[in-house]
Amino acid sequence: MDPTIDPQLKSFVAVAADSHFPIQNLPFGIFSPTPREDPRVGVRIGDFVLDLAVIQDCGLLDSANLPAGILSFRFLNPFMELPKQQRRAVRLLVSGLLREDEPTLQEDENLKLRALLPADSVTMHMPVAIRDYTDFYSSKEHATNVGIMFRGKENALMPNWLHLPVGYHGRASSIGLSGEEVVRPHGQTIAPDAEVPSFGPSRLMDFELEMGFLVSNATPKGDPLSVDDADDYIFGMVLINDWSARDIQKWEYQPLGPFNAKNFATSISPWVVTMDALEPFRKEAPVQEPTPQDYLVEKDRHTFDINLEVHIQAEGQSEGLCVCESNFKHLYWTMAQQLAHHTITGCNMSSGDLLGSGTISGPDKGSFGSMLEITWKGTEPVTLPGGGERKFLDDGDTVTMTGWCQGAGYQVGFGEVRNTIAPARDLK
Amino acid sequence: MDPTIDPQLKSFVAVAADSHFPIQNLPFGIFSPTPREDPRVGVRIGDFVLDLAVIQDCGLLDSANLPAGILSFRFLNPFMELPKQQRRAVRLLVSGLLREDEPTLQEDENLKLRALLPADSVTMHMPVAIRDYTDFYSSKEHATNVGIMFRGKENALMPNWLHLPVGYHGRASSIGLSGEEVVRPHGQTIAPDAEVPSFGPSRLMDFELEMGFLVSNATPKGDPLSVDDADDYIFGMVLINDWSARDIQKWEYQPLGPFNAKNFATSISPWVVTMDALEPFRKEAPVQEPTPQDYLVEKDRHTFDINLEVHIQAEGQSEGLCVCESNFKHLYWTMAQQLAHHTITGCNMSSGDLLGSGTISGPDKGSFGSMLEITWKGTEPVTLPGGGERKFLDDGDTVTMTGWCQGAGYQVGFGEVRNTIAPARDLK
Repeated sequence: MDPTIDPQLKSFVAVAADSHFPIQNLPFGIFSPTPREDPRVGVRIGDFVLDLAVIQDCGLLDSANLPAGILSFRFLNPFMELPKQQRRAVRLLVSGLLREDEPTLQEDENLKLRALLPADSVTMHMPVAIRDYTDFYSSKEHATNVGIMFRGKENALMPNWLHLPVGYHGRASSIGLSGEEVVRPHGQTIAPDAEVPSFGPSRLMDFELEMGFLVSNATPKGDPLSVDDADDYIFGMVLINDWSARDIQKWEYQPLGPFNAKNFATSISPWVVTMDALEPFRKEAPVQEPTPQDYLVEKDRHTFDINLEVHIQAEGQSEGLCVCESNFKHLYWTMAQQLAHHTITGCNMSSGDLLGSGTISGPDKGSFGSMLEITWKGTEPVTLPGGGERKFLDDGDTVTMTGWCQGAGYQVGFGEVRNTIAPARDLK
Repeated sequence: MDPTIDPQLKSFVAVAADSHFPIQNLPFGIFSPTPREDPRVGVRIGDFVLDLAVIQDCGLLDSANLPAGILSFRFLNPFMELPKQQRRAVRLLVSGLLREDEPTLQEDENLKLRALLPADSVTMHMPVAIRDYTDFYSSKEHATNVGIMFRGKENALMPNWLHLPVGYHGRASSIGLSGEEVVRPHGQTIAPDAEVPSFGPSRLMDFELEMGFLVSNATPKGDPLSVDDADDYIFGMVLINDWSARDIQKWEYQPLGPFNAKNFATSISPWVVTMDALEPFRKEAPVQEPTPQDYLVEKDRHTFDINLEVHIQAEGQSEGLCVCESNFKHLYWTMAQQLAHHTITGCNMSSGDLLGSGTISGPDKGSFGSMLEITWKGTEPVTLPGGGERKFLDDGDTVTMTGWCQGAGYQVGFGEVRNTIAPARDLK
């Protein structure tokens, strides 16, 4: 079964030329039609959401032989755990229902009213019950930039960096959705030359532009996943803002890594774009020199050409500043390598694990994926329209990340992850 | 309601003088009476398990007003989320049923046959659905030992160590139970003076003697838990063996902390000892100098006097070697401080979070909680009965950790966490 949807195909649902959600995308998410109704699975098309619970109930997905009610569940996990061919069949059935020459849904006004809902009228929820969250550090440009700032040019990359995808375990409980307010955290920090730490709200709030993938199926403990099988365990991708408190991080991170600097919030975009939708935007991943250990060598090494942007908008302003234009293709370590490395010890994966890329910086100054790098540790501030200078983020700032693949006359996109920073709360 | 059970009280169930499970303990766990039956909640008494699903069904816990079926669930989480007073009431009702002067259960042969099962006939399961796993580094002796080995005496403790409970996010998916075999992991390591890494099974397998506590109730994102309220969120404690591959750790851990060196397995003991059972063994925690930041200063600073031991037994031997005698009371940072620090950023807790202490080393050589310290990086091997020398752990070695509080004529204990190392598997 060819998973790609004909680039020429049109839907009877109007889709703007610059929409992220043409019939070639069809990402999955979890939504409630109204606040009183239960969350269920939906697919995004243009400015509409197709209610798959209703579509399944009508029998329109019967040929996919789905378990009853699997699209009425409040997380995508049971659907993600289906065999890949079965998930693929659902997406292709949906594309068939939505094409402009197919009358079944198009001409059933009653069903359209129930199943095709304006995207701005529904409430989005977390798409997946995220089990464990791992964050990698797979951009050579980001690791080099941070290394230069903290250790100097000579020792920018740690000796291990070119040999394995460095990563760490993150906090799963505090992962939230685009739209959720992010409260500035309190914590310990140390002033330059001080001997004892201070306490208060973080003063160096930062974003990190990342993407992440969701693991579809569990693997047994003790059994590594080979790098060539890894792609079969990737359900789809989302945008991630890995919020970071740089001043807390600097003081706490030795020797066990970032902890409180990252655990207050991580934000993701609500629509999960499937690997099938990304397939036409596959491209070769960067050549690796030195060649890594065998378990990390891929027969079919590839990445995806996904344009990424970050905008910051000051409170009360209608206009923001684009502070970063980057691309997923810059990453040195691929998703398959991340999965193979993560499991080489026998560490078991669960359905719903989220694996983040780490900050995706490109080679040029305009492509850096964090304020730390953009303002080079605060030495080169940026100026926001109507909002003054920024070394790091202020309360009320809204950070919007977006990502899309450019096709011939259409885009396959991720929508956005957009969150506003709320002031630190008073401590009880 | 006084939570402690009279030290003089006896059960009609025979309990040996050195049993960890007298009527003063009554820890909670999850078990199946037979492999065909569903897991449910049990309480351990001597060499028996009391089936609380049966006891609740009979109406013997009615005065606690529990939700129907809450003790028939396959994890303790729904029970843990009940108000503390209600959980306490259940434990006291159970102690009432088991006391030697109470006929209800004692004289009902039919009910006893169904509800009081020999511990060696049941199958134990993971007691809790663990949400996030955090591991701290709260033993000053351990942090100092490791610091001396890797950075020398002058810089043994990192500057932050005395100011905050250093910790990191661990891997939740690979937490398993006492009894489960632990497969030696593969990974990258670097030989002394080598420039490029090697690959193969870890050669420096280690245990870490830890204890952990389970969070009873969720906290909202954005709201720190005060150090004086933290105790109300602790359901109970277990023993933890935080397996570590030292050679993998050494190569990978900069700059984001341990990852593959720890994520292949973590083992816990099956019976969760409640804080009510530990109450009589409360004692003052070590004095902290310097005084930490206000949010870490406790009105009622305390810890618990819990004796800990680690034994290693070579394959095929009937006798092992006690390599460590330590005590939970040595820890510098308390559980309340760990929770307050973890949430000071607004990081939300979930019911079922496991927070580990970090390796619990005492002040003397005989009280070190890892092979790394016991053999001082392999320079002072130990000799196992019938098993030869050990710098680190061999395949077939069984590591048993045990812990107990010593009362006047009785013990309140944790049983054991006991696991055997299986050889590395062939890679596909």
